[in-house]
Amino acid sequence: MINVGIVGGTGYTGVELLRLLSQHPDVSVEAITSRSEAGVKVADMYPNLRGHYDRLTFSEPDAEQLGAMDAVFFATPHGVAHALAGELLEKGTRVIDLSADFRLRDADEWSQWYGQPHGAPGLLGEAVYGLPEMHRDAIRQARLIAVPGCYPTAVQLGYLPLLEAGLINPEQLIADCKSGVTGAGRGAKVPSLLAEASESMKAYGAGGHRHLPEIRQGLGDIHGQAVKLTFVPHLTPMIRGIHATLYGQLNADPQDLQVLFEQRYANEPFVDVMPAGSHPETRSVKGINTCRLAVHRQGNTIIVLSVIDNLVKGASGQAIQNLNLMFGLPETRGLEAPALMP
Amino acid sequence: MINVGIVGGTGYTGVELLRLLSQHPDVSVEAITSRSEAGVKVADMYPNLRGHYDRLTFSEPDAEQLGAMDAVFFATPHGVAHALAGELLEKGTRVIDLSADFRLRDADEWSQWYGQPHGAPGLLGEAVYGLPEMHRDAIRQARLIAVPGCYPTAVQLGYLPLLEAGLINPEQLIADCKSGVTGAGRGAKVPSLLAEASESMKAYGAGGHRHLPEIRQGLGDIHGQAVKLTFVPHLTPMIRGIHATLYGQLNADPQDLQVLFEQRYANEPFVDVMPAGSHPETRSVKGINTCRLAVHRQGNTIIVLSVIDNLVKGASGQAIQNLNLMFGLPETRGLEAPALMP
Amino acid sequence: MINVGIVGGTGYTGVELLRLLSQHPDVSVEAITSRSEAGVKVADMYPNLRGHYDRLTFSEPDAEQLGAMDAVFFATPHGVAHALAGELLEKGTRVIDLSADFRLRDADEWSQWYGQPHGAPGLLGEAVYGLPEMHRDAIRQARLIAVPGCYPTAVQLGYLPLLEAGLINPEQLIADCKSGVTGAGRGAKVPSLLAEASESMKAYGAGGHRHLPEIRQGLGDIHGQAVKLTFVPHLTPMIRGIHATLYGQLNADPQDLQVLFEQRYANEPFVDVMPAGSHPETRSVKGINTCRLAVHRQGNTIIVLSVIDNLVKGASGQAIQNLNLMFGLPETRGLEAPALMP
Amino acid sequence: MINVGIVGGTGYTGVELLRLLSQHPDVSVEAITSRSEAGVKVADMYPNLRGHYDRLTFSEPDAEQLGAMDAVFFATPHGVAHALAGELLEKGTRVIDLSADFRLRDADEWSQWYGQPHGAPGLLGEAVYGLPEMHRDAIRQARLIAVPGCYPTAVQLGYLPLLEAGLINPEQLIADCKSGVTGAGRGAKVPSLLAEASESMKAYGAGGHRHLPEIRQGLGDIHGQAVKLTFVPHLTPMIRGIHATLYGQLNADPQDLQVLFEQRYANEPFVDVMPAGSHPETRSVKGINTCRLAVHRQGNTIIVLSVIDNLVKGASGQAIQNLNLMFGLPETRGLEAPALMP
Repeated sequence: MINVGIVGGTGYTGVELLRLLSQHPDVSVEAITSRSEAGVKVADMYPNLRGHYDRLTFSEPDAEQLGAMDAVFFATPHGVAHALAGELLEKGTRVIDLSADFRLRDADEWSQWYGQPHGAPGLLGEAVYGLPEMHRDAIRQARLIAVPGCYPTAVQLGYLPLLEAGLINPEQLIADCKSGVTGAGRGAKVPSLLAEASESMKAYGAGGHRHLPEIRQGLGDIHGQAVKLTFVPHLTPMIRGIHATLYGQLNADPQDLQVLFEQRYANEPFVDVMPAGSHPETRSVKGINTCRLAVHRQGNTIIVLSVIDNLVKGASGQAIQNLNLMFGLPETRGLEAPALMP
Repeated sequence: MINVGIVGGTGYTGVELLRLLSQHPDVSVEAITSRSEAGVKVADMYPNLRGHYDRLTFSEPDAEQLGAMDAVFFATPHGVAHALAGELLEKGTRVIDLSADFRLRDADEWSQWYGQPHGAPGLLGEAVYGLPEMHRDAIRQARLIAVPGCYPTAVQLGYLPLLEAGLINPEQLIADCKSGVTGAGRGAKVPSLLAEASESMKAYGAGGHRHLPEIRQGLGDIHGQAVKLTFVPHLTPMIRGIHATLYGQLNADPQDLQVLFEQRYANEPFVDVMPAGSHPETRSVKGINTCRLAVHRQGNTIIVLSVIDNLVKGASGQAIQNLNLMFGLPETRGLEAPALMP
Repeated sequence: MINVGIVGGTGYTGVELLRLLSQHPDVSVEAITSRSEAGVKVADMYPNLRGHYDRLTFSEPDAEQLGAMDAVFFATPHGVAHALAGELLEKGTRVIDLSADFRLRDADEWSQWYGQPHGAPGLLGEAVYGLPEMHRDAIRQARLIAVPGCYPTAVQLGYLPLLEAGLINPEQLIADCKSGVTGAGRGAKVPSLLAEASESMKAYGAGGHRHLPEIRQGLGDIHGQAVKLTFVPHLTPMIRGIHATLYGQLNADPQDLQVLFEQRYANEPFVDVMPAGSHPETRSVKGINTCRLAVHRQGNTIIVLSVIDNLVKGASGQAIQNLNLMFGLPETRGLEAPALMP
Repeated sequence: MINVGIVGGTGYTGVELLRLLSQHPDVSVEAITSRSEAGVKVADMYPNLRGHYDRLTFSEPDAEQLGAMDAVFFATPHGVAHALAGELLEKGTRVIDLSADFRLRDADEWSQWYGQPHGAPGLLGEAVYGLPEMHRDAIRQARLIAVPGCYPTAVQLGYLPLLEAGLINPEQLIADCKSGVTGAGRGAKVPSLLAEASESMKAYGAGGHRHLPEIRQGLGDIHGQAVKLTFVPHLTPMIRGIHATLYGQLNADPQDLQVLFEQRYANEPFVDVMPAGSHPETRSVKGINTCRLAVHRQGNTIIVLSVIDNLVKGASGQAIQNLNLMFGLPETRGLEAPALMP
């Protein structure tokens, strides 16, 4: 049994970790921390967990307790993992960070987008970007994982086969992304109210969004050098789900794109290339760790449709997929259930 | 391994059976029938099942094939199980009927509400009403199960402790029920369109609804004689969930209602009595087989709040709970995952 | 032209007053106050008002400025109108209070439900309860109007014909009410987030809610003596709308209920009795000041279905209806548009 | 008073015409046709119209009756206006067609996308494309108007200033569009059910959609020669609204884009250029004829955000705007109310 702790378990990625881990036969959640909710049972805060974690209670973060775990997940705002990860690693605990703290390799760039100094630049060298479809082997050896963001996951998995094959112009990438409102977190903000966000659609961050540098870095890694990407996220009136619509300009004689995608992902347990002509729906991945893809073409433009559940493949499910790899378990362990549909 | 067939698998209760059974370690779905979709793979119709039932294909109903199964679920419009159940029972196959065909013991009353003659009155004698919290022992011995309707499940579980204890006036029962739109099925009807049903609330069947006689029969069984019930269902702008708000008039010196409920359901794996003062949310049971209850009081009026997922405890999950009992399995087998929330 | 001010215009009833008054040919909004938003243009906060109030700016509340208006609306939390109404009335300004401050005639009862002393008991004597269908003549003469709450409006209009005719038992009233989330206001609270409140249904205040004494007082006025009412509100996943399902026990030989309702409301411009057998939808009153009613019967139980838009007939529209009466205008002035549907 | 008829009034654009025209002081709806609903009162089908059109009844289409009108709106599936428009024009009735029948100037191209021969090629010469922001003068003189589609309206108004100014590469246009479900009409189709379409997002027609040639034609008219456009529509879980996210590549030294847009639309009553940095929400135009725009830039890519209500500026409101122009009325007559928000 792998003993794990969760730091910052009161947000949506925290409760989603608990939901998923309750079905994982090899993991036991031994600690969950929250300064604001210390002393509250998780099942009192999240009634869906009643009967599943009846003794688990939020506690103050305690490096001793966390350092005794085999692994610790950070489901925290940025900056928290910076402060604590080093100490845990020294104690031999592996760290799986769902926040943005270790996603960018360049501490200065991180600092620029997050408006504060990077708190643990010395750890950047060993942090592994936890996208298994790109970095599976490194993840298996890693002590510190930066779990990719939700938009970056959907966008990278969509562009991956095209960039690897050199089929599209890396200077002409446009990612138009639509996210459900859990992407904005569980904070009490007026724009996230049902009365404000439902029955409406809007873009945000159209002039530049924090996920942009992460996606650019990831796509650049695939391509082998810098790419140019336009990224516009949109708030969609639904709870979960990301739909990335990805545009690229063919720069080579087009081969069979469907075959290209199917071959690239033939052995990937969590990437499902839909039949030619398909339009994947976000609800088809509600609650699961799968990314469904379809590829279309209009003239010289390639269009990739990529859907994930932002809380699962975009966060907590991918974190568990990383844990499975790090601990030598089957990669799909605990992540086998089908999506809830309708 | 228990081999099962599903008759009429293209509706919401059919796909929900498939979703739930995909996680059941002791059951294998060997056949699924649909005249209209014969030849289509279930995973082509329901993309959430991709990767789970990649060979399972809808077929024409065939009594020979179905009769070779250990059990057959009917997820059909009324009348279909009437026609086929007898033949299957003769072949030794157990029948678990999710339709209304065997819920009413009185064939004439059935005929009156459904506007056609009862097609299998000879089987009514052995049909067991599949509400485990009432009829667990009979279910264990049964060959033919009538799975309760969604509203009847929520209403009966809410009134059960009060009627058994004789605490409320059985002539003054009012059940105000709210259901998500999957309760209306997967048929293409204008009132079920998103553009018609969302952002709105309405009652229906306020002058009398088909579930009324079933609920009356069930409550009468609990009480020991006929009860008087007013039942008004409402269409609620959500996909899943039933919220039953149940009113009763105290007719005896009130004991501690919270204790009464907790004791009655202490050993029930799928009934969760919430702490005093709670207001259960339907989302807390999204996708799971649990009924969550809370009991309140205003003066002489008792108010029970009862929530279920209409497709799970109100249909497919309860059907599997019955199957587990019939085949001597742990009652919760395959039904252990927590609700998807948010 | 009637010059009006709005105190506390940043909530949903405030912006709804602005939306409706923009179409009122005889009213000019000359001031709108908000301490937190002073200096902000209303059209910058509410983009639907762009092009309609391009010069109107939130200002600090100022008794001099407000006292120069013909009428002032209070769209404030409770307690604010207590503090300011008296001074405005002395200056000759009429006050239309959308808050709860003057709804209960008994200052002690108010104090008990709102947890603070009543701030203006001396004004209770002249406050008129602004339900035109009950108190039209008094409203015409009033200086100070207490606009009814949203639930109380829907419930009283539904029970009115039955209680006036003495047809139902006044000790056995049950009002099961469902409200859209704007009923909870524009405050940033976690339970009102789209990710929490959508795709779910729940009751709240099942042990007693602040609107209960107001409804009881109103129904008692109709009946002529105290009534006994059970009231359970529910949060419904939609933006606007209240659906009240009202239960009563017949205590007299039933006459034709449809005729009773039609006759009672024959001359009411904002009450629409639907044809027999109807089930009014909340969306049919979205954005308008109409209450639609239908009456049903199951045995001895009468069921009235009553729908309103909580922000219009339940608040801002009814406030304008009161203003029209107070200033001798046609009662429907500015309130003539049909509902937005779909 | 302008007497008008509506052919095919049972869909969403038909009822929206009725809703809007009920507030138009110079128009009287004298006839509305529907073969399937002949004899039914419009207010019985659309309860929001109760009290507004109490005598208006659906009738069989009758060329004599329609030919006696000043103008006739077609709110019909494609092909119907082809069959009837000519006869009405001969009788002196002006025709405002909300369908696709006269939008494409090339009858062959129309035939190719709609899978049937063009039924009235002889009328194409005089049909005017009813986008007032482009063709106001021609509309004033027109007898036959082809009202633009919903997507084409949002896309053309967004690209218009950029193409007119020659600022972007006309070979690199990408329009990623999101529509509410009323865009799919009022037909009873499974994918439009609330249980299927809510809580999900999906693209459709990614390989080519019927609105593509119309948009290409319109943008080509603006640019002066053919453009290359990639167009991907998406189904969004909301009732109304289109959000077009438009991408273009700067091909000239960029001037102040905000000023460009503000100047181009300075005198347009129904185009609202939002302040720099804004992200317009579709709900801000719910029920109204306004298009709200914002312009952003990421490097060399220009991003225009364009929102309309698909049933108003995308259909019925724009049709009335055309009628106002054709009959010499103020362009905004009957279209002045603010959006319903929240």
